[in-house]
Amino acid sequence: MSTDADVPEGTPLSVDPEVLGLVRFDDRGLVAVVIADTQKGDVLGVAYMNEESLRLTIETGRVWYWSRSRQELWRKGDTSGDRQYARELRVDCDGDALLLKVDQVGRGNCHTGEWSCFARRLAEGPGAARPPATAHR
Amino acid sequence: MSTDADVPEGTPLSVDPEVLGLVRFDDRGLVAVVIADTQKGDVLGVAYMNEESLRLTIETGRVWYWSRSRQELWRKGDTSGDRQYARELRVDCDGDALLLKVDQVGRGNCHTGEWSCFARRLAEGPGAARPPATAHR
Repeated sequence: MSTDADVPEGTPLSVDPEVLGLVRFDDRGLVAVVIADTQKGDVLGVAYMNEESLRLTIETGRVWYWSRSRQELWRKGDTSGDRQYARELRVDCDGDALLLKVDQVGRGNCHTGEWSCFARRLAEGPGAARPPATAHR
Repeated sequence: MSTDADVPEGTPLSVDPEVLGLVRFDDRGLVAVVIADTQKGDVLGVAYMNEESLRLTIETGRVWYWSRSRQELWRKGDTSGDRQYARELRVDCDGDALLLKVDQVGRGNCHTGEWSCFARRLAEGPGAARPPATAHR
């Protein structure tokens, strides 16, 4: 049986303060976070951080989110065991979204037990058509 | 010089109607969309769709978004030339985020001319610590 003593701590992240200053929290005090797996590179889900959860993530290296449904801070994996360790945080061009690369421990990111929250396909297509033979490139 | 006649059309996507019914638009009528490149697999940015832009994307295979700043529908690439063709749409576990895989044409997704909107690194760290030697696995 696993005990807290078995759970490796995270390691604080090194921060670029100038880039940190570009993060814009919305009128709820939140920023959208795209979670991607460091190893496989695939997208695991979308979550939200407030200023405190971002600070805790940076200071501890474990990943903290803000739960919109429960209106509380939570540390990923404390209940499920499916912990995340932060490898990299990036900010987008207008500062209102973060990309978080994690080392995912356990089953995966989703509360359903799936590796990714994006488990269901809505639509698919062939993508870019080849240009017609007469097209100028 | 490029003309409209040179721009390849998209191809309609095939849809799973049951999964389409799971999409939940927020109180602004929007759903967050994580954009990923089909070839490289990396995350290009976050944008938003309303119901009409989702429908147009599915029906045309070109990618349509809702601009929150301009409060209007827009088809990606019409101004910049940096078009997107939809390859796959996935929905997350609670229906309030989409993952959109695209064939990206041109310079990339970002209005700055960058390939990805996540051009700036905010923080980095070593990720998961190795478990202590005495840990039970």
